[in-house]
Amino acid sequence: MTAPAAAPPAAGGAIRINAERLMADMRTFRSFGADGTGVVRRALSAFDVQSREWLADRYREAGLVATFDRVGNVFAHDPRHARALLIGSHGDTQPRGGWLDGAMGVIIGLEIARAAREAALDTAIGIDTVCWSDEEARFAHFLGSRAYCGLLPDDEIAAAADDAGVRLTDAIAEAGYADLPPRGADPARHAAYLEAHIEQGPVLDRSGDQLGVVTAIVGAREFLVSFSGEANHAGTTPMALRKDAGLAMIRFAAALDTRYADAADDAIVWTMGRIEIAPNAPSIVPAGATISVQFRGPDLAMLDRFETELMRLVLETGKNDGPVGCTVRQILDYRPTPMDKAVTAIVARAAERTAPGRWRRMPSGAGHDAQFMAPLMPTGMLFVPSIGGISHSFDEDTAEADIVAGCRALALAAEEVATRFV
Amino acid sequence: MTAPAAAPPAAGGAIRINAERLMADMRTFRSFGADGTGVVRRALSAFDVQSREWLADRYREAGLVATFDRVGNVFAHDPRHARALLIGSHGDTQPRGGWLDGAMGVIIGLEIARAAREAALDTAIGIDTVCWSDEEARFAHFLGSRAYCGLLPDDEIAAAADDAGVRLTDAIAEAGYADLPPRGADPARHAAYLEAHIEQGPVLDRSGDQLGVVTAIVGAREFLVSFSGEANHAGTTPMALRKDAGLAMIRFAAALDTRYADAADDAIVWTMGRIEIAPNAPSIVPAGATISVQFRGPDLAMLDRFETELMRLVLETGKNDGPVGCTVRQILDYRPTPMDKAVTAIVARAAERTAPGRWRRMPSGAGHDAQFMAPLMPTGMLFVPSIGGISHSFDEDTAEADIVAGCRALALAAEEVATRFV
Repeated sequence: MTAPAAAPPAAGGAIRINAERLMADMRTFRSFGADGTGVVRRALSAFDVQSREWLADRYREAGLVATFDRVGNVFAHDPRHARALLIGSHGDTQPRGGWLDGAMGVIIGLEIARAAREAALDTAIGIDTVCWSDEEARFAHFLGSRAYCGLLPDDEIAAAADDAGVRLTDAIAEAGYADLPPRGADPARHAAYLEAHIEQGPVLDRSGDQLGVVTAIVGAREFLVSFSGEANHAGTTPMALRKDAGLAMIRFAAALDTRYADAADDAIVWTMGRIEIAPNAPSIVPAGATISVQFRGPDLAMLDRFETELMRLVLETGKNDGPVGCTVRQILDYRPTPMDKAVTAIVARAAERTAPGRWRRMPSGAGHDAQFMAPLMPTGMLFVPSIGGISHSFDEDTAEADIVAGCRALALAAEEVATRFV
Repeated sequence: MTAPAAAPPAAGGAIRINAERLMADMRTFRSFGADGTGVVRRALSAFDVQSREWLADRYREAGLVATFDRVGNVFAHDPRHARALLIGSHGDTQPRGGWLDGAMGVIIGLEIARAAREAALDTAIGIDTVCWSDEEARFAHFLGSRAYCGLLPDDEIAAAADDAGVRLTDAIAEAGYADLPPRGADPARHAAYLEAHIEQGPVLDRSGDQLGVVTAIVGAREFLVSFSGEANHAGTTPMALRKDAGLAMIRFAAALDTRYADAADDAIVWTMGRIEIAPNAPSIVPAGATISVQFRGPDLAMLDRFETELMRLVLETGKNDGPVGCTVRQILDYRPTPMDKAVTAIVARAAERTAPGRWRRMPSGAGHDAQFMAPLMPTGMLFVPSIGGISHSFDEDTAEADIVAGCRALALAAEEVATRFV
């Protein structure tokens, strides 16, 4: 479906987003690091730096003031207002990423900010926009937004390096950002934060809904469970004399999955995604085994329940499996992050106006920059469907009509926030 | 315990093995590739070639005729007899091996052959000895003995390469063996084959028995079971929509272990030693998983039972686990190899004379060169204890008294075979 050049806004909206311009700029942004149907544009890479230069030019064309900070975030500031809402997402991609993850929200932020200026709205607050750096953890998880929110200690910056050993400080210097000051959150200016993002899951796609109003970003906990036994010859070692760490891990994982299935509510998900066996040879009884246990959900009590079940099973395993040791350590601990109720109500109204009866409230199962903004200012998120639920893949895609609907709905929401929030 | 220079043989034996000479030569052989308490002497490496030159000199000193063949086997031939029994083992080690695995049997063969010549026995047949090449599969499993037994096809030789890509044919040329003819088994000459080896398991060590009379080399079967699902985001993918290959593998393995424990006899052992998960990341639902299933035992019917149970579970998994595919392919299939009853009875008598009441009959859970000799000529094996059951390790060791006892017992057995077998 091709949208007309300046689409009439949904009833009551003064901000007219330009769907053709939106899609054209999304395709241009995609070209920085394009690889087949995917994009390889890792944080602070040459393509990432070039894409941000291009973005800054678009901001300036729109009459916004563009500034960079040391970690690579790019901000566009509406010079006509002392206060503004902030709309954005991240510009970097996965090592082999899709063209929409983060990028869609960046260009939607650009389009809404410039359409708002074109509409010359007489609103209480303006609309700023941002392109965050390194959400995808090339150097550190949510590097740009955490730095902005004061959650990135100097020692973490100094120590950060990617999987190939490239240091963050070197990448910053290579990008030309080393002389820039870091930039911190400005709650005196920013009244709220909005972010549009692809769902990266199958719920909207399967349900036929066009928009998802995010209620909360799930909490996530991850643990590494380790089993220690003894390597032995697979032929000459009687079963009764073995200390098989791999078998202990298998029994543990099967039992944990059963307990989790019994205890789970409708929303919590759990994954045992990474297994390592040592020495991992068919003719050697395993000396060691590790398994990752990760669970995510919007309800803190359910996360606590799952953690308790895990610890209980670790203790039982330590007692019953006799010769094989079992230990656990925590890897991740993110609290659930509810979205702001008032902002979410505004986003929901905008969704209903844009896609009547074809939207739903839902948690976000993935982390986003918004989760760090939420404690600092009222925050809301809007999802569009991911075709096949696919993300983190060259096959990531969303129908153009859904991208445009997402932009329109967020523009409506932004307009209401800019009008009513003071 | 230090044995006297020429130990009196056990009652009735004319062959007097020289325990000090035995141990001195074992320690010299160990020095080729010694690394701390271990040995790194891979087949056809410089240390391996040097060790075989040294060995050939020892054979010649004893009045035996030493010959090499193309794949690196070294043979010592008793020139006084038209027929002989053959005693030996392999001279190469694991990538990081112990000092006794194979090497003990080689030097025991040397010691018995030369002690027999010194005793000037008037026996019907003589005693030859052999040092096999590449039992440890640097280039191919049991390369030397299989080549000798006509079980190594020319195309396998041409294609064989080690894990680093070094080709067997190049290694043979580098060792200087390329112009040597291959050598095949000579059942017209060799009336029987005997091999002494460390147990490489914990049974003798734990029981306090000094000697093990091998009844059979176990059969072994190995399968690779593969699960195919779909990679998905660990946060955004509802549990009901997952195709988790890792979870399917875990459930399968837990169920199989339970069924095997129910079905097993006293001797069969089973091992799931190698697991691979793809993509093996904590935040990604596994798309694929493989697990090795290996079982070994002396009883063919029990091996068949285990294979049937495996196939049954694969079929059930294919039906019940719905979205995750399950396939299986066979990797190894070695039939059990019984030792010759008459030879084994002779070895047992020798064990009782050497270590009264401190020996037992037992299967070999590891493969040996003897398993390829057994179909060609009456074959027997003798075990000595492995301290802590340890092998394939720098910590591999056996008490000197047990090594000497093994040599004495095998000398007694050899003498009886040489006297009675025609």
